[in-house]
Amino acid sequence: MKIIDGGVTAPEGFFATGVACGIKKDGKMDLALVCSEDTAAAAGVFTKNVVKGHSLLVTMDNIKNGYANAVVINSGNANACVGEKGYNDALEIASHTASLLDCDPSMILLGSTGVIGQPLNVEAIKKGVEEAVENMTPEGGKDAAAAIMTTDLIDKQIAVEIELKGTKVKVGGMAKGSGMIHPNMATMIGIITTDADISKTFLQRALRDCVKRSFNRISVDGDTSVCDMVLILANGQAENDSIIIDDASYAEFKKALDFVCSYLSKLIAKDGEGATKLVEIEAKGASSEEDAYKIVCSVAKSPLVKTAIFGEDANWGRIITAAGYSGANFDPTKVDIYLGDLLVCKDGCGLPFDEEQAKNILKKEEIKITIDLNLNNFSDRMWTCDFSYDYIKINGSYRS
Amino acid sequence: MKIIDGGVTAPEGFFATGVACGIKKDGKMDLALVCSEDTAAAAGVFTKNVVKGHSLLVTMDNIKNGYANAVVINSGNANACVGEKGYNDALEIASHTASLLDCDPSMILLGSTGVIGQPLNVEAIKKGVEEAVENMTPEGGKDAAAAIMTTDLIDKQIAVEIELKGTKVKVGGMAKGSGMIHPNMATMIGIITTDADISKTFLQRALRDCVKRSFNRISVDGDTSVCDMVLILANGQAENDSIIIDDASYAEFKKALDFVCSYLSKLIAKDGEGATKLVEIEAKGASSEEDAYKIVCSVAKSPLVKTAIFGEDANWGRIITAAGYSGANFDPTKVDIYLGDLLVCKDGCGLPFDEEQAKNILKKEEIKITIDLNLNNFSDRMWTCDFSYDYIKINGSYRS
Repeated sequence: MKIIDGGVTAPEGFFATGVACGIKKDGKMDLALVCSEDTAAAAGVFTKNVVKGHSLLVTMDNIKNGYANAVVINSGNANACVGEKGYNDALEIASHTASLLDCDPSMILLGSTGVIGQPLNVEAIKKGVEEAVENMTPEGGKDAAAAIMTTDLIDKQIAVEIELKGTKVKVGGMAKGSGMIHPNMATMIGIITTDADISKTFLQRALRDCVKRSFNRISVDGDTSVCDMVLILANGQAENDSIIIDDASYAEFKKALDFVCSYLSKLIAKDGEGATKLVEIEAKGASSEEDAYKIVCSVAKSPLVKTAIFGEDANWGRIITAAGYSGANFDPTKVDIYLGDLLVCKDGCGLPFDEEQAKNILKKEEIKITIDLNLNNFSDRMWTCDFSYDYIKINGSYRS
Repeated sequence: MKIIDGGVTAPEGFFATGVACGIKKDGKMDLALVCSEDTAAAAGVFTKNVVKGHSLLVTMDNIKNGYANAVVINSGNANACVGEKGYNDALEIASHTASLLDCDPSMILLGSTGVIGQPLNVEAIKKGVEEAVENMTPEGGKDAAAAIMTTDLIDKQIAVEIELKGTKVKVGGMAKGSGMIHPNMATMIGIITTDADISKTFLQRALRDCVKRSFNRISVDGDTSVCDMVLILANGQAENDSIIIDDASYAEFKKALDFVCSYLSKLIAKDGEGATKLVEIEAKGASSEEDAYKIVCSVAKSPLVKTAIFGEDANWGRIITAAGYSGANFDPTKVDIYLGDLLVCKDGCGLPFDEEQAKNILKKEEIKITIDLNLNNFSDRMWTCDFSYDYIKINGSYRS
């Protein structure tokens, strides 16, 4: 597997761009188009929030047939909680895009991210789509990645190349998300492209499995939004032997997809609103998969753990406390806790440790916390970030 | 019901004090003693965290017989996660206090709150207990309330007087807690005293019911600690007709207890670390009690809701989002949301509202948010606070 340039336009036969259509007040790019030359197999995973954005609902409908030609995403407005108009607006954008690309409206997937409860400016978006269709290029991945950003500080993209039985296959991706990030899912949108030839069934299966370990294993603030989704389009232009069974090629493809998803997920956690550190929480030795998940979730969400990490304070008591109220079953007297490689709690009991050494570990930009329950061999891990003054600053006045 | 002075020493036959025994580095009071002249009926509710502090475990044992003479609480050190020594230390403190008060060690209840994982200085505490036993007075409620504070900015106490069939009965209470506050329960300790004559069975029942609606309905940061408890001592010195059945006197007593518990709970939420506002979240019209609870919990915990309130930003989209991922079942197209009396979302759909009016509501020190699901008649409410820069400041360097 080789990392290559190009993001979502790295795979063959994909065009993209980003344009400014006027939703964002500051004139920044706010509309992204990703388009496949040929009709692509398509799969998606969507937020489990009871409240769902209107654009997302249209996408959930349109993806049911398993194919798509293009994805249109606007940032700055979530197109959520605006009633029937929101759904009709989304249909109109899909229909307009389809007429420009000469395909059926059901082949257009939509995403919207931003403020909730305010109607979309559909005319502006339609003009934006026209501009995007005119300007999309096989080098437009970076602009598309920039156009989907909201409070993100950096655009997030990656692409890799693999070989399947001697044929080069590429997987590219972009994502946005920084606040309101938590499993199942968050104010995040991920778009993955690949020129692999793969059946829609295996595409959906691969995406679901990879998202579980990546986009569903990040937490910034525990909030999950109404507009979150990860979509993948596979257009087959690599001309590999079609992946239709669970063979070595499928495994190789999945490895590449997993890398792309994990890479983007870590970028999201690292770019968490106000974040200064990327934190990996691992629970191991748990009695069950579910217990391990509950613990990493609870620790990753704890504001007290996250502020302690911001303050570079080796306050492991907050870690065992968060594990304790996670709902997981474990024996407190068997728990070991590590900050990096430093054992700070053994058998549930505080150890005298070198405060300087702990400080040096917590000073790093990437920190690993391990909670070993010493019961059985189930484990899980989650990426999160610290909680800083800037989180409050960013979120105290996002809408205004 | 009449509010009176005196906190935990307002009821007849209670003595209390607070002393500085050296656990807190700054020389502030860190040891509280509350003592009943006569043996009192005693009841308690305790944290559901899997990890439990050693002092709390001793108290859970000692309270099993339903009676107690005194409560000793130290602040500054949680006496948790220090292994067998922690439990033995707690036993030794109980035993030493009992010898000074001339009772059985099982009649002493203990509480510890503060940093986790560091051994107690037992000798200092024993000396502190000696000083406290010498100095306790029927006016010592305020000092006791001050001695249990950790990051609290204000001491928290209240007392009320009621009449049961012509006999005056008093209920007093004190509490500490400001960070790590969330249902079931949090870094909070509540001590209630009453001179009511009430059976230990009804005392336990009344406490459990009242805590459910008060101490278990506050959230500061969603974290729940290993040392949390609410204890009540009833010494019967009011000489009312003993409450042994579910009659009008029991109802009246419960009302007084509910008032004391709710008052202290609101003070905790209001004094939440870095808080500038007290926020009441109400969910009504829910399909079930559980759904209502899930929604108020989720909204009260959401860092995005709490930072928006700090920023006085009428971003109700975050409220419906938090309701949406709470796990509760509801129909998003039926949801109404109010900020104070201002309807901002009707049938799940944003309403145009006067931003000035919204700002004026959010500027207040006490804010009510109502989520009406318009399905059935189940409801719940929770108190929380906003999330400010100071929360990060306080918690970024608590231990150091």
